[in-house]
Amino acid sequence: MKTIQKLGLAAALMALPSIGLAQEEEVVAALVPTDSVFILNTLLLIIGGFLVFFMAAGFGMLEAGLVRSKNVAMQCTKNIGLFSLASIFYYLIGYNLMYPLGTWAVDGWLSGVWGPGVMEAVGITADAADDYGYASTSSDFFFQVMFCAATASIVSGTLAERIKLWPFMIFTIILTSLIYPISASWKWGGGFLDAAGFLDFAGSTVVHSVGGWAALAGAIILGPRLGKYKDGKVTAFPGSNLTLATLGTFILWLGWFGFNGASQLAMGSVGDVADVGRIMVNTNTAAAGGAIGAMILTQIMYGKTDLTMVLNGALAGLVSITAEPLTPSIGAATIIGAIGGIIVVLVVPLLDKLKIDDVVGAIPVHLVCGIWGTIAVVFTNADATFGAQIYGIVVVGIFTFVVSGVVWLILKGVMGIRVSEEDEIAGLDMAELGMEAYPEFSKG
Amino acid sequence: MKTIQKLGLAAALMALPSIGLAQEEEVVAALVPTDSVFILNTLLLIIGGFLVFFMAAGFGMLEAGLVRSKNVAMQCTKNIGLFSLASIFYYLIGYNLMYPLGTWAVDGWLSGVWGPGVMEAVGITADAADDYGYASTSSDFFFQVMFCAATASIVSGTLAERIKLWPFMIFTIILTSLIYPISASWKWGGGFLDAAGFLDFAGSTVVHSVGGWAALAGAIILGPRLGKYKDGKVTAFPGSNLTLATLGTFILWLGWFGFNGASQLAMGSVGDVADVGRIMVNTNTAAAGGAIGAMILTQIMYGKTDLTMVLNGALAGLVSITAEPLTPSIGAATIIGAIGGIIVVLVVPLLDKLKIDDVVGAIPVHLVCGIWGTIAVVFTNADATFGAQIYGIVVVGIFTFVVSGVVWLILKGVMGIRVSEEDEIAGLDMAELGMEAYPEFSKG
Amino acid sequence: MKTIQKLGLAAALMALPSIGLAQEEEVVAALVPTDSVFILNTLLLIIGGFLVFFMAAGFGMLEAGLVRSKNVAMQCTKNIGLFSLASIFYYLIGYNLMYPLGTWAVDGWLSGVWGPGVMEAVGITADAADDYGYASTSSDFFFQVMFCAATASIVSGTLAERIKLWPFMIFTIILTSLIYPISASWKWGGGFLDAAGFLDFAGSTVVHSVGGWAALAGAIILGPRLGKYKDGKVTAFPGSNLTLATLGTFILWLGWFGFNGASQLAMGSVGDVADVGRIMVNTNTAAAGGAIGAMILTQIMYGKTDLTMVLNGALAGLVSITAEPLTPSIGAATIIGAIGGIIVVLVVPLLDKLKIDDVVGAIPVHLVCGIWGTIAVVFTNADATFGAQIYGIVVVGIFTFVVSGVVWLILKGVMGIRVSEEDEIAGLDMAELGMEAYPEFSKG
Repeated sequence: MKTIQKLGLAAALMALPSIGLAQEEEVVAALVPTDSVFILNTLLLIIGGFLVFFMAAGFGMLEAGLVRSKNVAMQCTKNIGLFSLASIFYYLIGYNLMYPLGTWAVDGWLSGVWGPGVMEAVGITADAADDYGYASTSSDFFFQVMFCAATASIVSGTLAERIKLWPFMIFTIILTSLIYPISASWKWGGGFLDAAGFLDFAGSTVVHSVGGWAALAGAIILGPRLGKYKDGKVTAFPGSNLTLATLGTFILWLGWFGFNGASQLAMGSVGDVADVGRIMVNTNTAAAGGAIGAMILTQIMYGKTDLTMVLNGALAGLVSITAEPLTPSIGAATIIGAIGGIIVVLVVPLLDKLKIDDVVGAIPVHLVCGIWGTIAVVFTNADATFGAQIYGIVVVGIFTFVVSGVVWLILKGVMGIRVSEEDEIAGLDMAELGMEAYPEFSKG
Repeated sequence: MKTIQKLGLAAALMALPSIGLAQEEEVVAALVPTDSVFILNTLLLIIGGFLVFFMAAGFGMLEAGLVRSKNVAMQCTKNIGLFSLASIFYYLIGYNLMYPLGTWAVDGWLSGVWGPGVMEAVGITADAADDYGYASTSSDFFFQVMFCAATASIVSGTLAERIKLWPFMIFTIILTSLIYPISASWKWGGGFLDAAGFLDFAGSTVVHSVGGWAALAGAIILGPRLGKYKDGKVTAFPGSNLTLATLGTFILWLGWFGFNGASQLAMGSVGDVADVGRIMVNTNTAAAGGAIGAMILTQIMYGKTDLTMVLNGALAGLVSITAEPLTPSIGAATIIGAIGGIIVVLVVPLLDKLKIDDVVGAIPVHLVCGIWGTIAVVFTNADATFGAQIYGIVVVGIFTFVVSGVVWLILKGVMGIRVSEEDEIAGLDMAELGMEAYPEFSKG
Repeated sequence: MKTIQKLGLAAALMALPSIGLAQEEEVVAALVPTDSVFILNTLLLIIGGFLVFFMAAGFGMLEAGLVRSKNVAMQCTKNIGLFSLASIFYYLIGYNLMYPLGTWAVDGWLSGVWGPGVMEAVGITADAADDYGYASTSSDFFFQVMFCAATASIVSGTLAERIKLWPFMIFTIILTSLIYPISASWKWGGGFLDAAGFLDFAGSTVVHSVGGWAALAGAIILGPRLGKYKDGKVTAFPGSNLTLATLGTFILWLGWFGFNGASQLAMGSVGDVADVGRIMVNTNTAAAGGAIGAMILTQIMYGKTDLTMVLNGALAGLVSITAEPLTPSIGAATIIGAIGGIIVVLVVPLLDKLKIDDVVGAIPVHLVCGIWGTIAVVFTNADATFGAQIYGIVVVGIFTFVVSGVVWLILKGVMGIRVSEEDEIAGLDMAELGMEAYPEFSKG
């Protein structure tokens, strides 16, 4: 588009006889220089990257707050460990796999398909910038690696309180180096889902449902926690620290501004930056809708407002708007989010009926609302078709669920994925780490 | 390198008869293109918006840390609920009410005065940007909605541990859709206080005092917590988690950089961005001054440093500098903040003498220091007059206090605003939510 | 309007015989205007400043989580107090001392060497910007003051649980107004270490080792906590709240993106912003490497993963990459970080053998990995020499250790630096503050 504009300008120039200084000044003053475009786009990805990074803390606090105190240190360990492994293995394998035609391998020894990522050289010149496209390669990697890590964070919550540390870490490696990059490449790497017209702006399906499917496969194979479904009754295991869960939710909400906003991938033009603004507003209001939806519905259904449902409602709203945070009006975004919040309140007991034990509610939030959000694109984006959306949901779902399931089964067979009953009762903190998160506070 | 490029261009231009060299250089090299100005201004509002958003987490953690553990889950619920309602109702009603002449209603069916907000279209062109003024409409809404929510957050702390959930939620709706937008429009909507020369850069009065007046009216009508003022003695109810209160303070401090810094509303020129830098420094140092002021004064008065006073002192410094974070020197800002910190230490016991029970100290911090900060503008800003500042403080104060009081009285009459004595003793968490924030930790 | 402007340009170009259309286009389209450079550089420092600010919260939560509950409120008090004092005294004395030739004293009554900092005037013009160099003075101060405060934060962790509040505060004043600014000026103020070719991009030595040396001197003079080394055995005092320690680590990790990334000091060109992107990636991956390095090593050495080691491993990775976050490849950065993580696991027991009681592990993390990171520059930056790096490490080390030691000894002689045995057993919270961080939770 920029090239065309330049040519247009050139053509216009040919026809003109004379010149004024003032006019010249104005001309210069109206266009954003291409260097600035590159700088501004790169800056957007950097800001987006550090905001999405912070979601790792959000997931960590949410999960640490929703597990019982005897498993809290382990949940912290898993969250910092999975983020670190995602960072390393997405670099080693995932990134190039996800963007096979990518802007990546410019001055390195590897190009495309397989091998570790390579950044642009230090101190590139403005000319060299042309080789890197719309933004710096490293800023792109910085942003993308955070999405990969977010996918892995979703899994850890569902499987908490009973999965062994190291098998979980190995699964994280496979998820972040292979499963996520391959399925994500079908859409964001310019693959067949993209070609089929499947739309997913910031990843309701590509990120959240993928995390959710991997978690679902794991939850089924791992089985529920001891005593969760006993004698036909569901036993509630209340989270040990709801303030931390609340803090985690707020941090995730904050991080989501980067997740969705920077997925515009550009802010070097008036249109792009105004779109980023739209996305920010819609992301915020969808979360608000989800929280209020869940708040009102739990009050109606149970006669009491349920804080954990409100928290998950906000997250559900965020997941729901992620597939299309740009085109909805504020009102539409609020409704899309509110439906997400309602879905969570309805699906949580449903999973319990199926005896699928999802400790933090990640499957309702990320998988089910990821599906909802992906479908909801058709209501506000004229380019979306119901068929293409369903096609993407199903293809990604089957692939992720099946491959994850196979990996979980192999891990189960080879090394076992579940701690002993004794360890589970004692808590993973003492059993696997030999420490407690709150050693001085006596348990009630 | 850039100099050489300029000279190269200059040389080229020498062949151009009617253009002067110096002028041309300036044109190319010195002016920020108008598109970039729009982009940079929008970016400032976006960054400011997500920073101020995070203040919701700060208020949440501060309040959750300062209430007793039996009311913590409720305090979290109120904070996430009020933020969500503020987001929705400021959109539905407040925003257009506050900016009746605003830049808002461009492609929507409503213009001004009443009705939900409407964002600019997706992918506006640079031409269209002219219709939106200095920045994108959505980024402006994104920033403004966070201020509205902050106002509501102030109220929840004061009224904690005894107010019912749903009447508080209804008050929040009225505050964020009517009370705040109307009074704020008098200054920021270009209303009569603005015309009268009343100055309030980022809202010591417009935001903080308004929240404080609404809280004060509520506190008086609601009455103190059971046992707080018994037999002529004031009983301290220590906060249950001072680390979270500390974290909340740090988060608020961080968010305040967006609150004050982005209230410059522009960074598309050298002067604007340098001013944003000034504001950042002054905001930081005022908080530091407030914390140290409170630390030293509590040490002198009580022989011991009081952490909660230090936290409130930092916040007091922040509120105090908010009316004018730009014009003071660093030294003046430090002193303005320090006086804020001292005020808090002196006013907290004063409120107790009046038997006004403010659980977290929001009235001294936001109302009293809001007044102090608004007056302090006259010391560093030559455009400010003592008369205009007092006029603004009094008008906004009377309006907010009276209207809030009427709303609280109506709520009290219609549905009751206070939980039963039994529920208050049991704690709001079990009584209204049926859950505990820290279910596993036995209470001392 | 823009169309007309374009036509104006067209007209201008017609008269210019020796300039080709393409060239003119390039001029208009390719150069970032100098105003924009100033704006973008300033913005980078502002973003960096608020991110590094948040590290104060990170240090606070890390330390509050790693001390025993009876000292938590004091640890919070120290962290908010030291940050505030650093802000004030770096302004009063440190900043001008550190940058004696600086860009600072433009419109103030003081210039250079000694005296409080002075910001540029409100609303400077583009012309005036030339006087301030590459970015606004206030944004530079905002960024630099956060580094000074970070140095002080390092000290508080090591000396926790036994040092008196006020002597610690006085040491903080001396550290932030004299010790740090003087030694930092040798490198960043353009002093003799800079001239000698010593390289330290963002402060592995200048910030982290300085904090570490000051902490080491204090730890030796203060002595270990009661009961820590008894009968030849080391007693572990587990941290009271590992979720907060985890949160603190994530916050520090986030803040480090500003710490390292904005130390590029410029993003007004393609090369600069791409370098910021590189730094972000390397900073992230070094932390990941450190966490995984510590995780694997503790598993091998002790048969169990140790969460606190994983947290310190991540921080060690961050410190290790800080001296040179730009030149390494992603792989090299990962390895540099991983070695940092391994160092921490090995040095922590070593310190215990020397009976140096470092409560949170700040000496292994900040001092030892600061040295490692400074040396590691030679592996990826061709401009670095082993000799110059060692020279800088030794000079800064001797200066800081000796001067800090003298200050600690003077404080010990004059007012005593250690609480009484009785107070230490009771906990500093009740003894010095008269309050508890978690008053409602009974201790196990």
